[in-house]
Amino acid sequence: MAYQGGYGHPGSGYAAPPGAYPPQNVSVPPEVQRWFAMVDRDQSGKINADELKLALVNGKGEHFSDTSCKLMIGMFDKDASGTIDIFEFEKLYTYINQWLAVFKTYDRDGSNYIDENELSQAFTQMGFRFSNEFINFLVKKSDTVSQKQISVDQFIVLCVQIQRFTEAFRMRDTQQNGTITIAFEDFLSVALTCSN
Amino acid sequence: MAYQGGYGHPGSGYAAPPGAYPPQNVSVPPEVQRWFAMVDRDQSGKINADELKLALVNGKGEHFSDTSCKLMIGMFDKDASGTIDIFEFEKLYTYINQWLAVFKTYDRDGSNYIDENELSQAFTQMGFRFSNEFINFLVKKSDTVSQKQISVDQFIVLCVQIQRFTEAFRMRDTQQNGTITIAFEDFLSVALTCSN
Repeated sequence: MAYQGGYGHPGSGYAAPPGAYPPQNVSVPPEVQRWFAMVDRDQSGKINADELKLALVNGKGEHFSDTSCKLMIGMFDKDASGTIDIFEFEKLYTYINQWLAVFKTYDRDGSNYIDENELSQAFTQMGFRFSNEFINFLVKKSDTVSQKQISVDQFIVLCVQIQRFTEAFRMRDTQQNGTITIAFEDFLSVALTCSN
Repeated sequence: MAYQGGYGHPGSGYAAPPGAYPPQNVSVPPEVQRWFAMVDRDQSGKINADELKLALVNGKGEHFSDTSCKLMIGMFDKDASGTIDIFEFEKLYTYINQWLAVFKTYDRDGSNYIDENELSQAFTQMGFRFSNEFINFLVKKSDTVSQKQISVDQFIVLCVQIQRFTEAFRMRDTQQNGTITIAFEDFLSVALTCSN
């Protein structure tokens, strides 16, 4: 498969995370502040997975899954409190919007689902270079019923998981050749950290 | 840290999975059959996480967490149906009993909790050789409140996760030296397969 551009660097087969390196200490944009205030129903100044779930609906008006909301909070929940603050929300907001934009590009009929071929194109657009076998594995893993299509929240689950594991991999891929050598305990640490 | 025996081989720092290589096509022992019949409430011939949860109580009479039950079913749920049959249950039963026996050895006061030092001893007994830093990481990951102690179902969650990642690691550790070289896509496959 040819590399087709995006955020990544061609040699390694994985992408730079969109929005991963924002400038520090900038103020939160008004749009994000409004969103945060809407999602933070109990006005605690923090958002948990339940509040996020109430705020997110797919193209059919259904709420996102618990799994996807927990994973999204977990991306930035450094102190394992189950909540994120407005600065962490701003980063999450950027990710979600980018992922939704990619999904919508390929969900042309607005069915809220994309198929295997479209998923492959979506990841390519995000700068990843995955084999057909791996894309097939992702679809089967996500769609345990028909094993043929992926919903928007399943797509986001994949994006969050791949994002987290990619970051962990990249930190160790010092030669940027898409291969790492990793010891058992470090491997376990990465796997366990990114799993929940 | 010195290696103190158990199921593992000393060089690699990780353990052979207890009961991982049972003889094929042997009949299921009557004790396991009785357990299976008790757990399989709807008599479907399959057990799901909810049925397993109803059957498992900790030392305080509380049911195990949803997470731990889903993870246990997921260990053997090869077709991602959310259920396991009696042959898969037999393997799971062996694991659970070994993990519970190890936990009870260190939960001397029957409080249903073990501390960091006891967790270290428990993993050593199971043939693992973990650093103090890694054990500390496991406790903090599991006990997000006080970060000091681990309950029996949190212990089982750790055992399931470590078991699965260890198997994946071992398959790739062809030189059995506790280090693997792994490409990006394979790394993602392992991480995603073992995560849910």
